[in-house]
Amino acid sequence: MKKAQHLFVFYLLLISQLSLGNSTDSLWLHYRTIENKKVLKDYQQAIQSISIQKGSETLDIINEEVKHALNTMLQQKTPTANKNSNSLIISKSISLKSGKNSSSLSNELAQLTDEGYLIQSIEGNTIITSKTDIGLLYGTFHFLRLLQTEQPIDDLSIVQSPKTQIRVLNHWDNLDRTVERGYAGFSIWNWHTLPEYIDQRYIEYARANASIGINGTVLTNVNANALVLTPSYIEKVKALADVFRPYGLKVYLTARFSAPMEIGGLKTADPLNSEVQKWWQQKTDEIYRSVPDFGGFLVKANSEGQPGPQNYGRTHVDGANMLAKALKPHNGIVMWRAFVYSEHDPSDRAKQAYSEFVPFDGQFADNVLVQVKNGAIDFQPREPFHPMFGAMPQTPLMMEFQITQEYLGFSTHLVFLPKLFEEVLQSDTYRKGKESIVAKVVDGTLHNKKLTGMAGVANIGTDDNWTGHPFGQANWYGFGRLAWDPYLSSEEIAEEWLRLTFSTNEDFVEPMKKLLIQSRETVVKYMTPLGLHHIMDAHHHYGPGPWISKMGRPDWTSVYYHKADSIGIGFDRTTSGSNATSQYADPVAAQFNNISNTPQKYLLWFHHVPWDYQMLNGKTLWNNLALTYQEGVDEVEEMVSTWHKMEPYISKLEFKEVEMLLSIQLKEAKWWKNACMLYFQQFSDKPFPAEMEKPEKSLEYYQSLKFPFAPGIRPKWD
Amino acid sequence: MKKAQHLFVFYLLLISQLSLGNSTDSLWLHYRTIENKKVLKDYQQAIQSISIQKGSETLDIINEEVKHALNTMLQQKTPTANKNSNSLIISKSISLKSGKNSSSLSNELAQLTDEGYLIQSIEGNTIITSKTDIGLLYGTFHFLRLLQTEQPIDDLSIVQSPKTQIRVLNHWDNLDRTVERGYAGFSIWNWHTLPEYIDQRYIEYARANASIGINGTVLTNVNANALVLTPSYIEKVKALADVFRPYGLKVYLTARFSAPMEIGGLKTADPLNSEVQKWWQQKTDEIYRSVPDFGGFLVKANSEGQPGPQNYGRTHVDGANMLAKALKPHNGIVMWRAFVYSEHDPSDRAKQAYSEFVPFDGQFADNVLVQVKNGAIDFQPREPFHPMFGAMPQTPLMMEFQITQEYLGFSTHLVFLPKLFEEVLQSDTYRKGKESIVAKVVDGTLHNKKLTGMAGVANIGTDDNWTGHPFGQANWYGFGRLAWDPYLSSEEIAEEWLRLTFSTNEDFVEPMKKLLIQSRETVVKYMTPLGLHHIMDAHHHYGPGPWISKMGRPDWTSVYYHKADSIGIGFDRTTSGSNATSQYADPVAAQFNNISNTPQKYLLWFHHVPWDYQMLNGKTLWNNLALTYQEGVDEVEEMVSTWHKMEPYISKLEFKEVEMLLSIQLKEAKWWKNACMLYFQQFSDKPFPAEMEKPEKSLEYYQSLKFPFAPGIRPKWD
Repeated sequence: MKKAQHLFVFYLLLISQLSLGNSTDSLWLHYRTIENKKVLKDYQQAIQSISIQKGSETLDIINEEVKHALNTMLQQKTPTANKNSNSLIISKSISLKSGKNSSSLSNELAQLTDEGYLIQSIEGNTIITSKTDIGLLYGTFHFLRLLQTEQPIDDLSIVQSPKTQIRVLNHWDNLDRTVERGYAGFSIWNWHTLPEYIDQRYIEYARANASIGINGTVLTNVNANALVLTPSYIEKVKALADVFRPYGLKVYLTARFSAPMEIGGLKTADPLNSEVQKWWQQKTDEIYRSVPDFGGFLVKANSEGQPGPQNYGRTHVDGANMLAKALKPHNGIVMWRAFVYSEHDPSDRAKQAYSEFVPFDGQFADNVLVQVKNGAIDFQPREPFHPMFGAMPQTPLMMEFQITQEYLGFSTHLVFLPKLFEEVLQSDTYRKGKESIVAKVVDGTLHNKKLTGMAGVANIGTDDNWTGHPFGQANWYGFGRLAWDPYLSSEEIAEEWLRLTFSTNEDFVEPMKKLLIQSRETVVKYMTPLGLHHIMDAHHHYGPGPWISKMGRPDWTSVYYHKADSIGIGFDRTTSGSNATSQYADPVAAQFNNISNTPQKYLLWFHHVPWDYQMLNGKTLWNNLALTYQEGVDEVEEMVSTWHKMEPYISKLEFKEVEMLLSIQLKEAKWWKNACMLYFQQFSDKPFPAEMEKPEKSLEYYQSLKFPFAPGIRPKWD
Repeated sequence: MKKAQHLFVFYLLLISQLSLGNSTDSLWLHYRTIENKKVLKDYQQAIQSISIQKGSETLDIINEEVKHALNTMLQQKTPTANKNSNSLIISKSISLKSGKNSSSLSNELAQLTDEGYLIQSIEGNTIITSKTDIGLLYGTFHFLRLLQTEQPIDDLSIVQSPKTQIRVLNHWDNLDRTVERGYAGFSIWNWHTLPEYIDQRYIEYARANASIGINGTVLTNVNANALVLTPSYIEKVKALADVFRPYGLKVYLTARFSAPMEIGGLKTADPLNSEVQKWWQQKTDEIYRSVPDFGGFLVKANSEGQPGPQNYGRTHVDGANMLAKALKPHNGIVMWRAFVYSEHDPSDRAKQAYSEFVPFDGQFADNVLVQVKNGAIDFQPREPFHPMFGAMPQTPLMMEFQITQEYLGFSTHLVFLPKLFEEVLQSDTYRKGKESIVAKVVDGTLHNKKLTGMAGVANIGTDDNWTGHPFGQANWYGFGRLAWDPYLSSEEIAEEWLRLTFSTNEDFVEPMKKLLIQSRETVVKYMTPLGLHHIMDAHHHYGPGPWISKMGRPDWTSVYYHKADSIGIGFDRTTSGSNATSQYADPVAAQFNNISNTPQKYLLWFHHVPWDYQMLNGKTLWNNLALTYQEGVDEVEEMVSTWHKMEPYISKLEFKEVEMLLSIQLKEAKWWKNACMLYFQQFSDKPFPAEMEKPEKSLEYYQSLKFPFAPGIRPKWD
């Protein structure tokens, strides 16, 4: 008996170490054996049997997940039995002996949303319960996470409901499997072999999303192709929806506004035309016949060349409400993007979304969410929060974050984005006085909204490790956790993810947590310090391109944004300039209008500042610019050195992989510093401070670099 | 001791089962524990210690491979020691006690090529020896293959040298990572992250190729982009070459003929222009400075719109010899493709390569290989052998096979291609009388050629299982084995691969071997029976398209090839027709000119045959056509049923994966039958025989199907 036990322990140890290759291949869900012996013993003691409800696909998934997880984490085969104590009980209806506890449980259950759950230690058992199967699944993953991260489980009293309703990934995936702004290989949707062939990845994808509470996925690019709405593709979408359903993941599609013409044979796509309206109604009905829980449409209209209602003299409201009407009978929603800017509008691009949308407040149908990017330009390493947040009290606004690193070094730069997301969510809009933070707009509490949501542009692709950079997984993970609870701190998320993914060893977790938390500021420093923005190379957005000046339209250039001249640098968005500051609530506007009150991190976003301007540290703007770029480079060097100390705690392959990626990041950090400083020096006409390492090459060299095959470029058929 | 042993056995068993997920992910190289207990005991007895030479990267690889393989296959940790007997000795210089054996070994060694090896049982030891490190590596993989397939190893006397010199994969991979005619995801070359980032896949790729004797890889598409010859890409190529070198794998590139203009700033690419010649010399020298063992160039010139010497009124000889001269000082070679056909040549496309190249026999430089596709059209499911084979006694001809299934159902159809390759290699050209088979042209023995080679257009991509269909691996494997020895039988290869990849259980191997061997004929039956060819849909080549009639040029249509009319069907290539038969040696030409002597499998390739023509089985051509299509479908149904019986022998995931793929294959086999028979019925005006299942849809329906995003389409930038 003893020997068999020994062998079994050994067996489990092996499975946990070997079955899944690199730990990053299985994301945050490879259940390693509990490292701490004391904790392991406590867990083994606390979970001597399991009792899990059966009777649905979702419940089957929970059964499998728990058995798999406990086998490997606890090194014991936990019997299924309904014992009196030391049991893990997962069930929608819990019958307890003590009437008192049971009724308190009922009260707490009643307060949950359909996706919420309770995890409670009652009468020596651990109970996970909820109103729905999906709630149980979420609760199960929460509980397993406690074990994975070695938290105490002897006195649990967890009551959780998601704080937002719609928690979706936006895949900018094209039907040819290229991914716009994708840096992790290609689209995981293999449209050609669907519907018959169900790639194992589809299942792993759904499971990973469920584990962090993501409940929807928009399969296709916002620069949309109408073909996905034709019968042969709807059949493929149905196949994916069938796989995703038991994981609580709804499918959404992008609706190309001109689809009625392109695939419907109509002569117009005018949203007020009755034939057009009928076409969308029938098309929507057709989709719901195949996918009864279809989530709805995401639409990019009249932006960057996409068709939309304005092509027919109609408004965003006309367009969105037409689609909303078609979806309404099926409980579907429209996510209508506010990311619009027109080449015919000579005003500051930063102002356009607000100008165009805020006047429509209150006019959108009640199943429309307006999806707003975190900042007013376009997912820059740092932007002030978008002025639309809080400015449309009658309209549900949805947050759009970009998880894929379009402007943050693609997938070869280590950047922990939850830090960026947190900065935005914690920003105070002052729309209803102090503490009117963006998170309260997103979760609907500021203006008492029912429909709420958060979208993340996915960084997921066919790469073995899903996200190109193994640390890109932290950004997918962190997005999901913040969509569930926008008030979580980035530190919590960093620690959780590190423990889940790599190791619970403090000697690993502590330094790496510091590294993660610092990493976003580091990227800002070596790319766009002090409020600079949109100075990357054109089209592919890879590497520096502050010199970009000739494009189809001025607001696609870099010079439009940095406005460097002999006097200084920066975009004057104060009352003396574009007056974009006026789109913020008064206290915020006042702060940004005054250069002395403007946080230095936003300085050049709001002000055109003389090269000799003296900053808080007593040094000039020019010298600060140089030193900040240098700090960015230095900090990457520190990352390299921290990583080298982590070698004992991770696998050889993982160590080597990140080491190679950091060497690219360091090379490119220097490239950014050198190219930008040489370029700006033409205007400042000042020497580089001694502390800044001299550029290795000439400005001409940096300007000569071309990358026609950089990944993630927009599709050619668009 | 006993217990520890037990545990260790258990440990090894687990590694072999778990460490690599699906067995098809690690190709034919996952060393499962020997299933047969008797064999296992014999092996353990025979290999009690190992002694492997050290001192180079290649030798390190051999050491690692052997240790890893023996650990898992023999369930024992084999000590490194130079014992008197029962040792496995791997070394270039073997010192033996018995002078006699040693000298016989020396004699045998002397007869080997640099890549050859000996595996001999001498004085109770197993000895692997060769002249070079790479020879040792090949010998090691051969020996491990014996163990994997459970062959006796007690009396080995193996003397092996490859029968061809250049054994290369051709990757039609573009710099944007799309793969022309690629159906296994995208290019495994991640150019963006090279040279710093060395994907583990690069190493696994080199190892897999070394294990089957492939010694070269052309990294880029024959529809070439000159950018790969620029410094930043040469640096990336160097990084790959450095990874591949210890595995004996040389790197080649495709040379875009117009590169001197596109990246060299010249006004011409005329091969007789001295500036052009100088540019190529300097470019070649530049490449060799980074990659000292660079293999050379593969060129597609003046074909399908590619630039070439004819643009300047020069010949293929002028073009090839110019590049050959630049490569010669570095021992590089030119592989010049004979796949040419001109839209300005109204004659039969099948005749053009022969007409254009054969007159140049003897004029090519001695480091030029002319690379000839197996048939005169383009990798069809079945073609008669290319008439150029044997027709250029003064010129080294290299075989080009297509491993990727451009015309054979992409990666969702199970087709074992070594059967096709074997049919071609065994075809008798009669160029020097009977038994002048194609294999003798390829290995150089027919006309005493020194430079020999075989190229395979790779089916490799980013898919987890490398080739899209797990059985696509068999085609990569089989190509490598046939390049090494063009006389191997497809049955041998099938059995070897099945045993290596899945199981040595006879109840699995025997039925699956039958299935593999039959599978190629099955595809011919449901796609292009009786000598039909090139009747697929246009551009993407996915699915049937016998109706294709309007293209940029007639020889891109289907009607050009099947010539169906009210009288009959087929392309008259006899003396009364295009006279393509005259390009074969007399006995072959005579056979093909006579309809009664023409094998039925080539009937419609060479003859326009009346619908009522009575065939060997007494039935009309029309009925035979219908019944053969039906047979194709029926045989796929048999494949499905055979596969269902294999469930006990393989993993659940593998079983399910192939089951889904077979369901696609069956659906598409029916589609081919229905679409083609309905289309041809318009001409024959005859009813379908009762044995043929009636089409499910109308001809109009099949003609209406469009697949704009089918995979593998030619790149848009081309």
